[in-house]
Amino acid sequence: MKVVEDRVLADGKIGEGDVLKVDSFLNHQIDIGFLCEVGREFHRLFCNCGVNKILTIEASGIGIACMTAQFFNVPVVFAKKTKTVNIYGDVYTAKALSYTRDGYYDVTVAKEFISSSDNVLIIDDFLAKGNALRALISLICGAGAKIAGVGIVIEKIYQGGGDYIKSLGIRLESLAKISSMDKTGGVCFAE
Amino acid sequence: MKVVEDRVLADGKIGEGDVLKVDSFLNHQIDIGFLCEVGREFHRLFCNCGVNKILTIEASGIGIACMTAQFFNVPVVFAKKTKTVNIYGDVYTAKALSYTRDGYYDVTVAKEFISSSDNVLIIDDFLAKGNALRALISLICGAGAKIAGVGIVIEKIYQGGGDYIKSLGIRLESLAKISSMDKTGGVCFAE
Repeated sequence: MKVVEDRVLADGKIGEGDVLKVDSFLNHQIDIGFLCEVGREFHRLFCNCGVNKILTIEASGIGIACMTAQFFNVPVVFAKKTKTVNIYGDVYTAKALSYTRDGYYDVTVAKEFISSSDNVLIIDDFLAKGNALRALISLICGAGAKIAGVGIVIEKIYQGGGDYIKSLGIRLESLAKISSMDKTGGVCFAE
Repeated sequence: MKVVEDRVLADGKIGEGDVLKVDSFLNHQIDIGFLCEVGREFHRLFCNCGVNKILTIEASGIGIACMTAQFFNVPVVFAKKTKTVNIYGDVYTAKALSYTRDGYYDVTVAKEFISSSDNVLIIDDFLAKGNALRALISLICGAGAKIAGVGIVIEKIYQGGGDYIKSLGIRLESLAKISSMDKTGGVCFAE
């Protein structure tokens, strides 16, 4: 999607450790008009798939999921990274390896919010190795729900997460696909 | 706001430790139509205040802030509760006492996203003792920005956070004001 690629080129910053900082418009400060365009595009791509729920993971996925959900008129569920006293009762839990923090963390969703009758669209800001996505997929499978597809704003295709998702037979739509990235050459997109 | 009060009465659950669970529509699963009404109401209340930025705190404030920001057509900034490698450079930091977790945590915002020219509307899901709000106000004051007001979906007025905010001369608008709450008597609203 040209709007996403252009914005990454204009405002993305390449940091240490293969980190692409897009916090001026996507995951710290949020450009709400930009996010609305992103949501509209996810709806265009998945509107014929019978999606009845959108699943994302806190924190930066939430805004994207909400803006997308408006077009589908379906609820959002966001998986939590830390178990607090506000979640009790039965939860689905999966472990995820963090890309930006050290070690593993628990990803949880209350069982009452995903069931076998759901057809879930997963939405997230980034896809790299796919660690968070693996956990979300595991939660959905644990609930016996269907996965309508995965919508990602920015994918680093050279890190393998996308190949893994597709190897599971899950439809993946990434709005910008980064094929390479470094401080001297900048960001290059696939296709 | 009747829509919020009715929804709390219909779907809120009173848990242990004075916790009101609204995770079926507000802060785990999100009813996007409900959130749109909430955002529209915050806009109605604050549309003449010159708001140019909305500040919230991860995670459950983000969806509400995004749905509200659409009506204002201004960016959202969400403060982070944990410092990760994705935030580097200069940040404003404040400590907050957690209501649902044990102990204090750091609240941070990158300095580049709040400046002295900003007129900030703070949005959050809950106001009880106001611990998270105090931290957000501290961040905004540290940046020399103005506070246009505070918009809260559900306030527990008997916990004192609202009185503190108003004692600072800051306009507070809570869409549902809980005056008392217990498992036998249920939830009662002020006014």
